Amino acid sequence: MSRSNPALALSAKARRTGEQPISFLMAAAADPKFINFAAGLVDPLTLPVEEVGRIAQTIFSSDARARAALQYDTTLGLARLRSAALTHLEKLENKSAADFGVSEREILISTGSQQALYLIGDVLIDPGDIVIAANPCYFVYTGTLASLGATVMPVPMTSDGIDVSAIEKLLCRLEREDRLGRVKLIYTTSYFQNPTGLTLSAEARPRLLALVRRFSRSRRIMILEDAAYRELRYDGPELPSIKSFERENRHTILTHTFSKPFAPGLKTGYTAMPPDLLEAVLHQKGNHDFGSASLTQHIAAEALDGGLYDQHVRLLCESYRRKRDAMLDALQRYVPASAGASWTHPSGGLYVWLTLPDDADTSRSSRLFQACVEQGVLYVPGDYSFQPVQGPGGQAGFVPKNHLRLSFGRVAPEQIEPGIQRLAQAIAAGAAERKGDVVPMNAHP
Amino acid sequence: MSRSNPALALSAKARRTGEQPISFLMAAAADPKFINFAAGLVDPLTLPVEEVGRIAQTIFSSDARARAALQYDTTLGLARLRSAALTHLEKLENKSAADFGVSEREILISTGSQQALYLIGDVLIDPGDIVIAANPCYFVYTGTLASLGATVMPVPMTSDGIDVSAIEKLLCRLEREDRLGRVKLIYTTSYFQNPTGLTLSAEARPRLLALVRRFSRSRRIMILEDAAYRELRYDGPELPSIKSFERENRHTILTHTFSKPFAPGLKTGYTAMPPDLLEAVLHQKGNHDFGSASLTQHIAAEALDGGLYDQHVRLLCESYRRKRDAMLDALQRYVPASAGASWTHPSGGLYVWLTLPDDADTSRSSRLFQACVEQGVLYVPGDYSFQPVQGPGGQAGFVPKNHLRLSFGRVAPEQIEPGIQRLAQAIAAGAAERKGDVVPMNAHP
Repeated sequence: MSRSNPALALSAKARRTGEQPISFLMAAAADPKFINFAAGLVDPLTLPVEEVGRIAQTIFSSDARARAALQYDTTLGLARLRSAALTHLEKLENKSAADFGVSEREILISTGSQQALYLIGDVLIDPGDIVIAANPCYFVYTGTLASLGATVMPVPMTSDGIDVSAIEKLLCRLEREDRLGRVKLIYTTSYFQNPTGLTLSAEARPRLLALVRRFSRSRRIMILEDAAYRELRYDGPELPSIKSFERENRHTILTHTFSKPFAPGLKTGYTAMPPDLLEAVLHQKGNHDFGSASLTQHIAAEALDGGLYDQHVRLLCESYRRKRDAMLDALQRYVPASAGASWTHPSGGLYVWLTLPDDADTSRSSRLFQACVEQGVLYVPGDYSFQPVQGPGGQAGFVPKNHLRLSFGRVAPEQIEPGIQRLAQAIAAGAAERKGDVVPMNAHP
Repeated sequence: MSRSNPALALSAKARRTGEQPISFLMAAAADPKFINFAAGLVDPLTLPVEEVGRIAQTIFSSDARARAALQYDTTLGLARLRSAALTHLEKLENKSAADFGVSEREILISTGSQQALYLIGDVLIDPGDIVIAANPCYFVYTGTLASLGATVMPVPMTSDGIDVSAIEKLLCRLEREDRLGRVKLIYTTSYFQNPTGLTLSAEARPRLLALVRRFSRSRRIMILEDAAYRELRYDGPELPSIKSFERENRHTILTHTFSKPFAPGLKTGYTAMPPDLLEAVLHQKGNHDFGSASLTQHIAAEALDGGLYDQHVRLLCESYRRKRDAMLDALQRYVPASAGASWTHPSGGLYVWLTLPDDADTSRSSRLFQACVEQGVLYVPGDYSFQPVQGPGGQAGFVPKNHLRLSFGRVAPEQIEPGIQRLAQAIAAGAAERKGDVVPMNAHP
C-alpha cells in the first residue's frame, strides 16, 4: 500500500474560499483580559434563558407538539413559523402582507439569515456576475460573494445609507458598457448597518426600488435587503423596509433573523422573496440540508405567537440603548479633539464606526492595533469592510485604513468606559506620533 | 414605473438543480388514507419525546449552559459534542480514535449529515468531475451531485454492497482514458443502504480502501462513507467502518447523523474527515451559515454523554426489528410465487428492496403504481434510484423499472400487514396481466 499523500484536488469554488479574515480576533476574544469591542455578538447577559426554558417546557408537555418538533419538517420551513413571521412582518411594516405581495408561501426559513444570503447568491451568481454593495459593507457576505465568483462593485456609504445616486451612475455606466445583464443583486443592510451603524433614509428606499425597476431591462435586478439589526432600534423613526414599497414582490428580498433580536443559538432566519426566486432557492436548499432544524423553528414560532419575542426585544433595546449611550458618552469624554476623530451616532444595531484622519492607520499590523492589544482592548480594523477603490490620488486598489468598528454588543456595560478610555489613550498617542509629538503611554514603551 | 417582469437570470448551478423527484409523494404522504411505505422517515411513535424534554430541562436549569446553548457556537461545532461523538465513534469501531487517525479537531458538526454530504461535494467537485456510486443509490445525493455538475458513474450493487471489483475495472478504464485525475469521490452507504437495505461486506471494506490508495496517483481519491443507518442494526454482525481501517485519515470520510437513530428534528450530523479536506469544508461552511444551531448541538451532546442516546437506540432497534419482521413475513405470506418477485432481507435500516421480473413496470406512470394509489398504498418507484446504464440488449440510457423501495420506517406496525396485502394484490394482478390472464381486482376496474 502506498504511503504517499497525493494532493487533494479542490473545486474552483473551494480555491476561491478562504478563512474569514477576522478569525484571528476570535481567538483573542476568548481571552478575558481583553475588553472586546471587536465581537459583533449579542450580549450573553440578555439572552432569553428563562423564556426559552419556558417555551421548551410548553412544547415538551404536549406529546403531539414534541413529536412534530423532533420530526423532520419541510424544506421551506414550519408552516406555523412562516405564518407567525408574516404576521410579525405586517406589524413591522404597519401594512397588510397583501400590500407587499407576500404570503406564507413566499417566506423561507433558513439556518440563520446567513444561509438565506448564501442560497440567494448560489442560485443567482455565476463567476463574473456583478453585485453592487456599499463601501464599507458586511465583510462576511462580501467574502461569500467573492467565493461564489461575484464581482462586488462598491458604491460609497453616506450618512443616509448606501449612495443611491452613485448606484444610478454605476448602472448607467454598466449599461453603456453593455454589462447590465451581469448585474444580479444590490446588497444593502438597510437598518443600522454593519459596520457603520447607519440606516438607509426613508426617502432613499422607494428611490432604490425605482432604480432596479428602471434598469431591469432583459434581466431582473434584485435588491437584497439584510434587516438583521432592524428590531434593535433605540431611537429615531421606525422605517418601512424597501420590500414594503413593492406590491408585486418581484425585485425585493428581505431577510430577517432571530439571532440578533432573540437568540443566536436558535440559528433561525426568515426571508421574504419573489416566488420564482424562492422556487430556485428551495431546490438548492433541498440539496443543502432539505430543511433547517425543526425544534428551533418550533421554539421561534412559540416565542412569536406567545408574545415572549416582543417582550424580549423591548428588554434588549433598553439594555443595548444604555450600552450605546455609554459608548458614545465615553468617546465624547475620552477621545481628545486633537485626535481629529469622528464617529457615527447609530439609532440602533450593535456598531459605532470611528473615523480617524486620512493618514492614520488602524489595520491589524498598525501600531494603533498593537497598542490596543497591549492595553487589552480589541476592535475590528475598518479595512476588512472595504472593497478596493480608486484612491484620492487616483491610484487603483485603494483601501482606507483610518476606520475602526466598535461593537457594544457583547461587552459588559461596566467595561465600556474603561475600554474606551484605553482606546482613546492609544488613539491620542497615535495622533501625537503622527504630529511628531512624544506622548508617554503606559504599555507602549 | 415599469410593470414588466423581466426574467430572473439564474446561475448555471441553479439551472442544473431541479425539484427532488419524489416530492409528489410528499403531498400524497400527508393523506391518512394511504399506508405509506414510501416515506423514508423515522417512526413518529418512537421519537425521544420524554428524553429530549428531560434534556431541555437539564440545560435550562443551568444558567451558564442555557446561555451557551442560546449563543453562537463555532463553525466547526460545539466542542463537547465533537468530543462525545468521537468517544461514541470509538465505541462503534471498538478501537481507539488514534488508530484511525481522528481527533475532535477532525470532526465537523453539520445541519444533518446531508449538509456534510453537500459541503464535501461543494469543495471537491467542478463540473465534469467524476463520482463513482452504486446503482441503485440514495437519489437525493446523486441529485445533489448532478446539481454540482458531477458526472456520476454507476457501478452495480451486489448482495455484498457496492461492487468493488467493478470499481476496480472502472478505475482501470478511466486511467487508460487519462481521466483518473477527474475522479474525486467514491460514494457508498455502507450500512443498510438506501434503497436496497444491503450492507458492504466486512471483506470489501479494506479492499475498497486499498483501491483508492492504489489509484490516487497525482490526485487523491476519497471514499465518502454515509453511515446514516449504521446504528439501526437488528441482527447480523457489527461491522467496522471503512474509515476504521485507515490509520492515516487521508482517503476516508465517515458521516453519521442523529436524525435516524435519535431525532430528525435536531437536524444534527457529525462527520470525520481528513484535516486538509476539513479545512476547505470549514471555510465553505463559514459562508453557508458559520455554524449549525447551537441549542440542538447541546441537546445531542447531553443525549450522548448522559446515556439517553444509547438507551434510545436500543428501544428503536427493537421497534424497527419488529416492523421489519412484520414486513418480511407479510411479503412471504401475500406475494404469490407466480409474481416472480424477490426481495432483500436487511439486517438493519429502514428499507426492503423488492424486485419484479424484468418486464414489470413499477414507475410512477405504471399501472402498478396507479393500482397501488387506488388501493391506498404508497411505495417509491425503484427507477428514481438508478443512473442510466447500458441495457441488456446493449441500448444506452437503460433504467431498470422493475423495483420497488418499501420502507417500514414511518408506517404504524399494525398497518404493515394490510399494506403489504394491498400491494401483493396489485403485484399479482400485474403479473397475471403480463401473462395475459385476467384477474379481478377490487379497485382496478
